[in-house]
Amino acid sequence: MSRYIFFLFSALIIFSFRIYGQQNEISLNWEIGYHKTATETPKRWAIATVPGAVQLDVMKDENYKQPYWFADNVIQFDWMEDYFFTYKTSFKKPSMKSFEKLYFHSKGIDYAFKILCNNVLIREQEGMFTYVDLDLTPFLKEDNELKIILMPVPKTGIVYEKGTETYRQNAKESVKPAVSYGWDWHPRLVTRGIWDETFLVVRNQSHIKDVSVSYILNEELTNVDLQVNIDGENLSGNNFRWILRNSQGETILEKKQTLLSDNVTFNASVPNPELWWPHDYGTPYLYTSELYVVDSKNKLLSEEIQKIGFRKIKLVMNDEAWIDPRFPRSRPEVPTAIEINNKRIFAKGSNWVHPEIFVGLISADLYERQLLLAKEANFNILRVWGGGIVNKESFFEICDREGILVWQEFPLACNNYGDDVEYLNVLKQEATSIINRVKKHPCLAIWSGGNELFWNGMTDQSLPLRLLNSLCYQLDPYTPYINTSPLFGMGHGHYLFYDKEIDENVFDWMPKTRKTAYTEFAVSGASNMSVLESFIPSEDLFPPKTNTAWEIHHGIGAWQQDSWLEIPTLKKYFGEIESLEELVKYSQLLQCEGLKFIYEEARRQRPHCSMALNWCFQEPWPSAANNSLINWPNEIKPAYYHVKNACRPVLLSVYVPKFEWNENEEFSCELYLLNDTYDQLEPTNVKILLQYDGDKEIELLTWNFPGGNSFQNVRGPKASINLPRINNNLFTVKVLVENHEEYNSSYVFLYNNKNVNKVFPAIEYYNGEFLFGYNEVF
Amino acid sequence: MSRYIFFLFSALIIFSFRIYGQQNEISLNWEIGYHKTATETPKRWAIATVPGAVQLDVMKDENYKQPYWFADNVIQFDWMEDYFFTYKTSFKKPSMKSFEKLYFHSKGIDYAFKILCNNVLIREQEGMFTYVDLDLTPFLKEDNELKIILMPVPKTGIVYEKGTETYRQNAKESVKPAVSYGWDWHPRLVTRGIWDETFLVVRNQSHIKDVSVSYILNEELTNVDLQVNIDGENLSGNNFRWILRNSQGETILEKKQTLLSDNVTFNASVPNPELWWPHDYGTPYLYTSELYVVDSKNKLLSEEIQKIGFRKIKLVMNDEAWIDPRFPRSRPEVPTAIEINNKRIFAKGSNWVHPEIFVGLISADLYERQLLLAKEANFNILRVWGGGIVNKESFFEICDREGILVWQEFPLACNNYGDDVEYLNVLKQEATSIINRVKKHPCLAIWSGGNELFWNGMTDQSLPLRLLNSLCYQLDPYTPYINTSPLFGMGHGHYLFYDKEIDENVFDWMPKTRKTAYTEFAVSGASNMSVLESFIPSEDLFPPKTNTAWEIHHGIGAWQQDSWLEIPTLKKYFGEIESLEELVKYSQLLQCEGLKFIYEEARRQRPHCSMALNWCFQEPWPSAANNSLINWPNEIKPAYYHVKNACRPVLLSVYVPKFEWNENEEFSCELYLLNDTYDQLEPTNVKILLQYDGDKEIELLTWNFPGGNSFQNVRGPKASINLPRINNNLFTVKVLVENHEEYNSSYVFLYNNKNVNKVFPAIEYYNGEFLFGYNEVF
Repeated sequence: MSRYIFFLFSALIIFSFRIYGQQNEISLNWEIGYHKTATETPKRWAIATVPGAVQLDVMKDENYKQPYWFADNVIQFDWMEDYFFTYKTSFKKPSMKSFEKLYFHSKGIDYAFKILCNNVLIREQEGMFTYVDLDLTPFLKEDNELKIILMPVPKTGIVYEKGTETYRQNAKESVKPAVSYGWDWHPRLVTRGIWDETFLVVRNQSHIKDVSVSYILNEELTNVDLQVNIDGENLSGNNFRWILRNSQGETILEKKQTLLSDNVTFNASVPNPELWWPHDYGTPYLYTSELYVVDSKNKLLSEEIQKIGFRKIKLVMNDEAWIDPRFPRSRPEVPTAIEINNKRIFAKGSNWVHPEIFVGLISADLYERQLLLAKEANFNILRVWGGGIVNKESFFEICDREGILVWQEFPLACNNYGDDVEYLNVLKQEATSIINRVKKHPCLAIWSGGNELFWNGMTDQSLPLRLLNSLCYQLDPYTPYINTSPLFGMGHGHYLFYDKEIDENVFDWMPKTRKTAYTEFAVSGASNMSVLESFIPSEDLFPPKTNTAWEIHHGIGAWQQDSWLEIPTLKKYFGEIESLEELVKYSQLLQCEGLKFIYEEARRQRPHCSMALNWCFQEPWPSAANNSLINWPNEIKPAYYHVKNACRPVLLSVYVPKFEWNENEEFSCELYLLNDTYDQLEPTNVKILLQYDGDKEIELLTWNFPGGNSFQNVRGPKASINLPRINNNLFTVKVLVENHEEYNSSYVFLYNNKNVNKVFPAIEYYNGEFLFGYNEVF
Repeated sequence: MSRYIFFLFSALIIFSFRIYGQQNEISLNWEIGYHKTATETPKRWAIATVPGAVQLDVMKDENYKQPYWFADNVIQFDWMEDYFFTYKTSFKKPSMKSFEKLYFHSKGIDYAFKILCNNVLIREQEGMFTYVDLDLTPFLKEDNELKIILMPVPKTGIVYEKGTETYRQNAKESVKPAVSYGWDWHPRLVTRGIWDETFLVVRNQSHIKDVSVSYILNEELTNVDLQVNIDGENLSGNNFRWILRNSQGETILEKKQTLLSDNVTFNASVPNPELWWPHDYGTPYLYTSELYVVDSKNKLLSEEIQKIGFRKIKLVMNDEAWIDPRFPRSRPEVPTAIEINNKRIFAKGSNWVHPEIFVGLISADLYERQLLLAKEANFNILRVWGGGIVNKESFFEICDREGILVWQEFPLACNNYGDDVEYLNVLKQEATSIINRVKKHPCLAIWSGGNELFWNGMTDQSLPLRLLNSLCYQLDPYTPYINTSPLFGMGHGHYLFYDKEIDENVFDWMPKTRKTAYTEFAVSGASNMSVLESFIPSEDLFPPKTNTAWEIHHGIGAWQQDSWLEIPTLKKYFGEIESLEELVKYSQLLQCEGLKFIYEEARRQRPHCSMALNWCFQEPWPSAANNSLINWPNEIKPAYYHVKNACRPVLLSVYVPKFEWNENEEFSCELYLLNDTYDQLEPTNVKILLQYDGDKEIELLTWNFPGGNSFQNVRGPKASINLPRINNNLFTVKVLVENHEEYNSSYVFLYNNKNVNKVFPAIEYYNGEFLFGYNEVF
């Protein structure tokens, strides 16, 4: 066969495979019911949506108040925690060839369950992250019934008592995400059910179960040594054909071989690979690995096609990280600087919580909309926080494609997970499944044991963390692993614009802090007006009160007494709050200016600092006030745009030592050119203007910026003036850059005199027209 | 069979087993030769001592200058590093039954080698800690030859250039102990050879290879769940009998069973176990596990008898260890408080380096003498430092028996061991052997990756450390593991009585430091006169000069220019040093008072501090000056007695803020009752005396000590006086305790006036008569 004809032929085969691959999945119609004890059967069956959640199915069937997020409707679900739920479905035996088998496949059943086929127990499992893949063939009749019985939700640790105890203690010694037991932005709502794709599938008895492509990229980045592991059933005697395509779809490598067992490994090399980069440092090149198993007559039996990418990722020591050079000497701060493909980056991003309280409702489309927002915000990394789920495959596929790094935590958060042998067994099973799935994605940057575990009684000696480190080492050694965040040198917090306990705000504490990585910090902001109106009964909208939707939705008494609305702070800076509009605008103003200050200050602290991630990106249900940048379901808060600007690869940043100013005070500011890119910057002219009372303007300084080196900040000049009398309570500082408008910045400050006029920051820019900070105040 | 007869019968069997067990080992006579290339054979064969070292064999054969430790004789060995060495031995095939096999067994061949039997290559190995156990039967003739070819020593990392580079860099990416490449108390002498027991042994073809007894002691310490794993060859069809005896030799458990495979596991429970304790907190109870394999006719085929002990050991958080409660918040210091059998202890001890430069010469007898000294010094733990070897079995057996905890480091120290795959493979093999051997000993308290690895470029991300953590988790999960020492909160150093760079001495820096564990600290002292005279040619004895044995033996230019004699420091405190006697006495005085101050201050810092280990216990060859307490080979330095006193379970300690005093200065001191025991202490009366100029005495204070709680220090009163005119340069402070002379303490201070008389501290007590500090000065 000529080369040309062979390629033509193989293209045809691939095309036919694809069709075959889509045809053999059979979807199912499910019903659901609940019962108090394991031996009972449900008294009533409702239609079940799969994937979905047991709560939503009952809500629809029994005419619960809707929508579930309105006011206090969520409490309707409370009773369900202690019930068993049974899913059932019936199906005819599909027509199958003698060499075919029928499998039941589910990518996620939450949380502990039994599966019965025609009343035969075929699987018991604890854990929502281990795929279920069961050969039903031996149990099949003409008419079949499949049942999935969910156990009540696990409740370990202290007893849950609303109002007196932290709810999430109930999540101890379970691998169920802790967040659903209640958090300061999440009601106690222990969702569960079939939460990811679930179907029947007909397979040839000879089929691939898994293909894993591991690799070592050499120091010089000029060669990849691949190892491909094929795991399957009844493969022996058949042949495989493996193709590696580059990002253009061109075949780079090809291999054909007879399979001698069900577990086959082979090696290959890719010279001069196109590397996977986070989007702001290069192109996230992806290759395609295609594995086909064919029989002796070249008939396709099974296939596995996956995107792969090549990158070398490390956590390296931060510069100047040695803090204790004198004897008795301890150790330096842990390495938190991300080095990818031998280049250090400044990691900018956010903490990702799941975007919908009912995780079964999360679609690839929702992931895509939010991940594109993250990318547009100049984020190159997301910390997938250990209180939530490990996301579905589409999340990682989009991150791979868009060049967004993922810091993936295991499902441990804010509990003292103990050394109990049964818990360790479940954790081992779940972590193994998670690692083997997620390690295939080049976007994976860091494994982490979970969130704030060293604040809750766990230590480096805790066996769950030693287990996770060990599993990651064994299964994915070249991806960094940390036990938890924060570690020595890293920081979580602060979570307030102004802390009355210590009488300090963001502008006070942040510049005197020196952390290697700010992996959580927050300033809360009220939700957008339209969001508030969507779940607060109109009569409760203003003023906010306890025992209303304001409290249930975490505007009051959530973390501390005043969080997250922080009305005393608003009063301190802006006087009595007279309307909902005033509340929202001033609250959001503090979030905008506070977060901008922290991100830019973290960048000014480079190279000692290497990372800045705010808490948090989005929220799983509509909050009254929250630290998120995105309101549920996908409403952008003003702070998003300010953070986006603070994270531009290059910008002119102004350091101003405080937020609140008075007449005749010496107002000082200092310029910094922040450059996270590897570009050399050309010389230009920069000026700083102070604008106030609508049209008044003072030029504070000009700077002949001499140009800058790659990946280096440049400290500019300092200016100061005696503040004039200002009539409004806000004024603006703007930085204008000649020929580089995209580097411009602006900041709003508080002028806090008697008899000042209250004005609001301009907010028109919230809908996409926003450029570089507040244009004006009025 | 009656119970009585059965016991009698089994006792007889055991007796006969023992004889059989001793008879079947066959010792060998070895010869040795060297060659420049792998393919050459030695030109000359010398008699080899096994276990021993290649250097010693050549030294004897070729009439090198002896003893090897005298003057600069050690440099005679330098050329050997790059040579191959071949051991050979010949033996007749022993008379064996058809069901017997002949094995070659070695507990240690250092470092990379090949073994040939009758010129057939039967083993290649890199690593001195993995036992060699080879079935020779298939290769046997009537007359047999066994050869072991040692490769040249590994030299990785930077090239060794005497005088310009740190020698030990050569140890990188090898599992050979780094110390032999040179240290500040160890010459570069890369010893090697067959270093542990090595013999032929006839075994039944059905025999035990290993028995491993693991266990979980319940929280209440009332029950042990045992798991016994038997690993053997051709066991199937035979029977085993297992007996567990308590410390009195009484049979506690017994089990008989037919063996169905070569790998058998069974469980058992021990209710109300006698626990293993470190000697100062209880009795180190040991049980005996006896496993016998017998055939169907009850004939003994194989046996394995081992001591085991039951203890629960943890590293828990130090009290008050949270140092950073404000936002942005980091993590607390790592847990370093040892909790054994649910009781916290204060860990007192020292750093153990191997006691003989040629590790093949280390005998059980030498271990015993030094370990008993450690126990008598009130030490409950030894940190077996990662620069040296993992000790032979007898070391651990003695620690088990005497109740001395062992902190065991892997052989990594002060290098940046990289992620090289071949290195990781050797490390995995060696660490697996080490863990499986040492984990059987109840004395094992802590696994550590190695020494000061985070000061040398390694981080938590380094794959060798992640591998070690993973292996320890998999093979011995209930023993704590740390990556290295020091970690966050722990301290190494200082290593000088007086640091001229910062103009501070021990009395200055130690009280203002707050570490959770002082795991290395040092004050150097000259070696005893008799030791100095044993290796320094008499004409070089005084004054010490460079380029003499003083320098080669680390008295000058060892760590820093003046270490370890620190003559400028001696001059600062004592004026011009006129004689060798003066040098030794004053140098040793600083070591005595400096170490005493650090140990007692660490204990005063309890509960924040939980551990104090000086650098170091002993030394592997005679130093001119060193931080050790024991001179080579086993000569006690005065500091040993002072440390022993500072580590008494209960003592009265006096805090004095500085060492050097003048006339009319306000001399102040403060009393502390230090109690590391769980005893309640009865009330008593305490007084402090200041003694000077032979017979003069001032009573500084009396204290009616009200009694004390278990494991609690009690802070006593403070006193001060204006110092009188003193004629001598030393004076003494003594604490006398009514009815409890064993709590008495005394301290010597410097009186630094013009025209002062130089006196020496009394030293008669050095030879065992010593009670509680300096009795007088004269």
